[in-house]
Amino acid sequence: MRLAELSERSGVSTATIKYYLREGLLAPGRQVNATTADYDEEHLRRLRLVRALIQVGRLPVATVREVLGHVDDESLGRTIRMGAALWALPQIREPDAEDAYVRAARDEVDQLLDTLGWSNAKALVTISPAYRSLVVAVAAFRRLGHGWGAERMEPYARLMHEAAVLDLDFVETYPTEAERVEIAVLGTVLGEPMLLALRRLAQEEESARRYGFE
Amino acid sequence: MRLAELSERSGVSTATIKYYLREGLLAPGRQVNATTADYDEEHLRRLRLVRALIQVGRLPVATVREVLGHVDDESLGRTIRMGAALWALPQIREPDAEDAYVRAARDEVDQLLDTLGWSNAKALVTISPAYRSLVVAVAAFRRLGHGWGAERMEPYARLMHEAAVLDLDFVETYPTEAERVEIAVLGTVLGEPMLLALRRLAQEEESARRYGFE
Repeated sequence: MRLAELSERSGVSTATIKYYLREGLLAPGRQVNATTADYDEEHLRRLRLVRALIQVGRLPVATVREVLGHVDDESLGRTIRMGAALWALPQIREPDAEDAYVRAARDEVDQLLDTLGWSNAKALVTISPAYRSLVVAVAAFRRLGHGWGAERMEPYARLMHEAAVLDLDFVETYPTEAERVEIAVLGTVLGEPMLLALRRLAQEEESARRYGFE
Repeated sequence: MRLAELSERSGVSTATIKYYLREGLLAPGRQVNATTADYDEEHLRRLRLVRALIQVGRLPVATVREVLGHVDDESLGRTIRMGAALWALPQIREPDAEDAYVRAARDEVDQLLDTLGWSNAKALVTISPAYRSLVVAVAAFRRLGHGWGAERMEPYARLMHEAAVLDLDFVETYPTEAERVEIAVLGTVLGEPMLLALRRLAQEEESARRYGFE
């Protein structure tokens, strides 16, 4: 397809597409003649991903380039390829300092992983930003005088594991590895606000069931 | 307790406590003499909440004041009191415009609520920011050419309902209504990053189980 059609089908202006091409976020089209290039479905798919990362995920161009670099790295196994792409996304929160609360929180999280039998996640703790984010969240509760021990986290972790099974089952419905990694990134950028909105809606539903509206 | 002890037990400096007192985020202590006031456990609890909202939730002082106003409004029923406090928190995302994607997304979300039988949540759609956030998240997927219909959302909604039951069960372990509303607000501000971190960890665990680390 020509640039105009790519623009129409993606809803992204031709000026913006040209900008993405210059920034290397989109591979050049196949040159048909000196002034015309041809684009295919893969360009369209990639353009939608770039747009999601920039407009919905609000990532800077340099971060998008880093995420795409991992998405395209065929030398990586699937877990690490998805992981690397997701780990390049802005993280929920990083530890500010290694204080006593952070250390206690780390013990709680490690105990949780043992209880759950998540030995794979445990093998990744030194490199996983998700692990560090969880430690920081638990440390924040502790600092406020609220214990959030392994026992209290466990049922939530089990629910999130059910969600992860749904996530990966859906990712596997895509035929190529490139699409699978892309959809995993999209699912994180777009799926997290959806999950939180569903949780707040569910809280309203459950609260009204228990206490009514009075 | 005196100001110094309140500071020590909360980990908040006396200068910051005085600032919160001036801004009306913390009720004055009981005046013992011209220069000394006495604080109790309720002050400590409120101070921890204010600190969580400002430091972890990164809310501006005016928003904290609004949230606390709802937390303290004993004239409201429990659902609306919790709801009002939570709705004053910054929302995940608001619709930018009423375009075709937003309208289609609203239809999907309404169908989801019907399928789930969430009639209470449905009764709140005109005032609930969670509903609008969900519509926006679904519209973002649609705009990128990914259908996220009611059918695909349903299992996630059921998981989030299980999480909401856990949330409210925990809230109910607190003896007073004021504490229950406070802990609901804390659970949202601190609990959301925790839930997302657990989800990313669970994805890593599940991915490694399916595909190994190669």
